[in-house]
Parts: sequence; structure tokens; C-alpha cells
Amino acid sequence: MNNPKAHKTALHEKEGVNQPESISKSSIEHITNLRRKQPSAKELSDGILNGDKIALSRAITLIESTNPSHLEKANEVIATCLPHANKSVRIGITGVPGVGKSTFIEAFGKHLTSQGHKVAVLAVDPSSSLSHGSILGDKTRMEELVKDENAYIRPSASGDTLGGVARKTREAIILCEACGFDTIIIETVGVGQSETAVHSMVDFFLLLKIAGAGDELQGIKRGIMEMADLIVINKADGDNIKKAKLAKTEFNRALHLFPAKTSGWQPKVSTCSAVTHDGIDDVWQIMNEYFSLTKENSYFESRRSEQNSHWLTETINEQLKNRFYNRPDIAELLSQNKKAVQNNEMSPFAAAHILLEKYFGK
Amino acid sequence: MNNPKAHKTALHEKEGVNQPESISKSSIEHITNLRRKQPSAKELSDGILNGDKIALSRAITLIESTNPSHLEKANEVIATCLPHANKSVRIGITGVPGVGKSTFIEAFGKHLTSQGHKVAVLAVDPSSSLSHGSILGDKTRMEELVKDENAYIRPSASGDTLGGVARKTREAIILCEACGFDTIIIETVGVGQSETAVHSMVDFFLLLKIAGAGDELQGIKRGIMEMADLIVINKADGDNIKKAKLAKTEFNRALHLFPAKTSGWQPKVSTCSAVTHDGIDDVWQIMNEYFSLTKENSYFESRRSEQNSHWLTETINEQLKNRFYNRPDIAELLSQNKKAVQNNEMSPFAAAHILLEKYFGK
Repeated sequence: MNNPKAHKTALHEKEGVNQPESISKSSIEHITNLRRKQPSAKELSDGILNGDKIALSRAITLIESTNPSHLEKANEVIATCLPHANKSVRIGITGVPGVGKSTFIEAFGKHLTSQGHKVAVLAVDPSSSLSHGSILGDKTRMEELVKDENAYIRPSASGDTLGGVARKTREAIILCEACGFDTIIIETVGVGQSETAVHSMVDFFLLLKIAGAGDELQGIKRGIMEMADLIVINKADGDNIKKAKLAKTEFNRALHLFPAKTSGWQPKVSTCSAVTHDGIDDVWQIMNEYFSLTKENSYFESRRSEQNSHWLTETINEQLKNRFYNRPDIAELLSQNKKAVQNNEMSPFAAAHILLEKYFGK
Repeated sequence: MNNPKAHKTALHEKEGVNQPESISKSSIEHITNLRRKQPSAKELSDGILNGDKIALSRAITLIESTNPSHLEKANEVIATCLPHANKSVRIGITGVPGVGKSTFIEAFGKHLTSQGHKVAVLAVDPSSSLSHGSILGDKTRMEELVKDENAYIRPSASGDTLGGVARKTREAIILCEACGFDTIIIETVGVGQSETAVHSMVDFFLLLKIAGAGDELQGIKRGIMEMADLIVINKADGDNIKKAKLAKTEFNRALHLFPAKTSGWQPKVSTCSAVTHDGIDDVWQIMNEYFSLTKENSYFESRRSEQNSHWLTETINEQLKNRFYNRPDIAELLSQNKKAVQNNEMSPFAAAHILLEKYFGK
């Protein structure tokens, strides 16, 4: 159509106006640059300390990265943020699937932000890499909270080991606190060892339950009830109210069977409905009683200090094991020796001795 | 007095008969030889397989030795004994001091030997190196059993770590079984982590209690009640019988709060008196019910196999940690970093990273 004279036919088309680019070149350049350009550790920590959630997300992604070259930068960001962290309360929430964790956290989180708090919700779910995020993976389950500018929601880091996932989450807590979030909620699912890991990174541990049909205490994972500072019976609405109150009495009785906690706190039971919002404020009041008590008797502070030591040792121990068990020649010999041990052909100690001699090159 | 003529005084003494040596020279030689001569691994294992308790004791001493040159011989003895081990039931018994563990084990052990069983009693007490044997140290507390030719009693190995003590005990089990003992009792004291270690080396776990004055469930170490296959309320005699029966009801109720065990066994409660011997046979009957059930559903076998794997991994993990934490330069840096971590000057993960880089020589 460059030469209209050559096409004097009915099919002639008028030369039109050039279609404008749907995205301006400068915009594309800007976005590409942003993507291409890895922000420096300083840019990230500056952003975090200014309350920038995008910088926070990027820094957490860095923490979660398995790329060894990211490790140094991540450590730099954490080191800069660390003096600004720690000014928060950390709350662990667990409960088996179906108990309404997401709706509870949504109602509870909204209640806190409406009072001026800044709430970060993290998750520890070592199974998420397999199940593609069984908890918090679907942010739409917290529709309101996700839109709240005073809330930040982050699904579980994925990872092969609970230790790895827990480490990443604990580093993310530091960053969230430095970003100005004063209430950190760590969600975990009521199965396996993840409760113990979460329990050792929070100040307060909440077990979410629903009133069941039969014996209220059946099916509780060993030890989890003992960790709880508060048991909340959720879905206490409509026809469920009566059942929930009954469950409350039973749990209260069961909690009194356990020995006193070193925190000086007597664990409590309360009921609530994430739908009607009944009892949500009670939960927050109970937590505040706990925080007052433990800050006054200095348990709060000494426990955080203990948790720090714990995580130092845990990280070392996990790495020592990873190095050993991931060495291919060790893994092969281990599998042979394990069989021999299980068949009583070799004592566990003799087998261990052989493996350790190989590892340390004797 | 060699020349009596030179001493013709009132002070003259008659030349007496030479005092005979109080121990004959040949006896001294024999004993010295025995002490000097270290029996060979073959002599020890031959002795053990022939049911010789002196050989058994010597081999256990070898296992307990911290002298590295003894390690190889100990491993040789264990390797020879291993195919002859495993034909036994292993029973863990715990209870806080004052509950009457020694008198119970004496009465229970005598009951078993009177039925033709051969009973070995070992102990796991990591505190014994400090307290000079707080349990089983004083064999006179089991006067009857210690004289019984079908019984063998061995105090706890001493050691700095629970892991070390537990390993030695577990190797001692193998030797006792090879020596023909069909019932192995492992005693431990109801404090600390030693219950978990003992639980992972026995087939059956018994918690010994006495009826208290107040709330029966106060003061129970977290988790120990959940491990119990049987709770025995001891000292159920005289004025105590009524209290003991009441306690039985309360414990039974509490046990039902826990989830079902994978063994398929519903934990039981019984009362007994080590003084009147009432209920001692009941305890043995309950254990036999348990062994029948778990041998039939193959839990017994699969659990032993799992325990073997567990001890293989435990031994490796403990050694990996020992090597790390005992290196003087690491210990020094760790103590510095720990302080920094507790004061929030360094994140636990950064501190661990620095330590690991030093250890692995990066």
C-alpha cells in the first residue's frame, strides 16, 4: 500500500492511521529493567525499613532461593533488618484441615488491622512443595485480608525438609518485623512435626478445634494439646453453639491434667465464630493477658533468647546431617548397612562406626 | 637375733617360727595373671554364649570403656553375639525416685526367675557419673535378686551424654540376650530425656507410680504417660489399697484421652505391692497379653527393626555433633556467636553459617 496508484481496484483500502503501540516503549523498557535489575541488598533493606511490601516480598523470595549466590545477599538484608526486628508478638496457629483456619485468620486479622495493627501471616507447611501449597497457597481464601493494606500474607516456603522450611520462615519473621508488622501469625497444619517447629518460633501457640460429635479429645496429635496456650473452638454458631460450649468444658478439664507451664500461664479454652465474629475479640484479649503476664515475669524475653540459641544449634545440626547423608558414597553404603542392621546381621553401632570412618576418611 | 650369744640379757627374745605368708605365692601369681591377662574377644564371646556371667560382665566393661583400643575388641564380641541375641522380651521401667522401683524390680524379677526365666536388669541413668550411681548403684537394694543365679544386675554405664549411655546399654542388651537372658529389664529414673531413649530400646514400657494425696495426674513428666503400655500403682498395701484403687480409676480415665497406639494395644493400669507381692503376677500377665498381641500383628518385629534403624541414625548424628562441638576453635567461636545471637546482634542463621564455614574449612 506504499504506492496507492498501483492498486486502483475496488479492493483499494484507504491508508489508515498507524495503530498506536498498546504499551509505550518507555513502559516496556521500565518493566524489563525492573525485572532484569536485581535490587541490591541495600535497596531491599531500605524498602523493607520504609514499609514497602514489594521489597519485603522480594527479600523473602531471596531467602527462599536455593541459588547459593543469593545466600550472601539474603544474609546482608537480614543483618541490616535485624536491629529493627523483634518488636512484635508472634502467634502460632494450628488445627487440622477442615477446622476453618483460613476463615479464622481472616476474621482475626481484620479485627487486628481495624484496631490499627499491622498483621503479617506466614505459613509453615513442609508438604507444600508436594501438594502445591495446601495452606495459604490459595490467597483467595483470605479475600478481605489480602486486600488490606495493613496486612501481608505469604504462603509457605517450599522445601524438602521441615528444618529448611522453618529456617526460611524464621528469617521471614525478622523481615516482616523490620517492615513494621507488629503481629506475626504463623499458620501450620495439624499434622506431623511442623507444630513443634512453629512452637519454637512463636510467643503464643493457639490450637484451633471444632466441636465434634463424639469424644472431644480423640484424634489430637500427641503433644500438640500440651503446647497450646489457648484452645479456640471455632464454628461456634447456630446449632453448634451448644456443642461448642460442651467441648469447652471438656477441654478445660483436660488442660488441667497437664503440669503447670514454665510461663506461669494456665492455658485457656474459648469459643468463637469466624462467621458471626463472636468471640474473636475474646481471643485477642486472652492473648494480651498472656503477653502482659509473660512480659512482666520476663518469660517473654528469656524465651525469645532461648529460641534464638535453639535455632542456632538446630541450623548447625541440620547442616551437619545434610552434608553427611547427601554424600553419594555415604548414601549408598548407608542403604546397604541399614538392610544388614534390620536383618540383625550387623549391630546399629558397628554399622554407624563403618559409615563414620568412611565419612571422616580414616 | 642372728647370734643369740651376743645378747645374753633379760631382753633376749626366743627365735620364733617364721610367720607363714598369708597368701600363697601361687595364689598371688594366679590372681595377678588373671588381672594382667586380657581375655581375647573369642574367649569373651565363647564365655557369653556358654552363659558365663563373669565373661558377660567383662565384655560389658569393654563396651563401656572409653579407651579407643577397646573399641575394636568390643565390636568383635558384639558381632559374634549378635546372631544369638534378639530372643527375649525387653521391658522398660520408669518412675520418679521414691516410687519403689528397686523393690518392685526385685519382686518382679524373683517372680520371673521362679518361673524359670533368666532375667537381666540394666539401667540408663546419665546422671550416674555425677551422682555415683543414683539407680542400681547400690545392689544391696535388690538383695535377693543379686544372689539369684538366674538373674544378672548391672548398674548404669556412666557417660557425659545420654546418647553415649544409651548406646552402651543397647549393646549390653545384645550381650545379655546372647548369654541366655530371656527377659531384659531396663530401669530408668523418671526425669529428663532418658525415658525417650529407653522407650526406643524396649518392647514394653511400664510406668511405676504410687497413689498420691491430691490430684493423681499432677507432676507427670510431659509425654511419659503417653509412652506407657502399663501404669502400675505400687505400694498398694495396708492403708494405701483404697487410694491406689482410686488412682487406678483416674489413670484409666486419663489414658483413654490419648489417641490409639499403633501397636493396637490399649494401655492398662494395675495396682501391686512389692511387699505383699499382690498384683505382681498380674503385671506379668498383662505383659504377656501385650507380647501375644504385638507378635501376632507383627508390630513386635517391625518395631524392633525400626528401633535398629533409629539407633543407626542416632549414633551417626550424635557422632557428627560430637566432632563439631568438641573442636576447640569451634567451641570458642560458638560461645561468642551465641552471645551475639542472644543479644539480637546476629541472626541465628548467619551465626550458624559462619561456624559451618569455619568447620568445613571454606
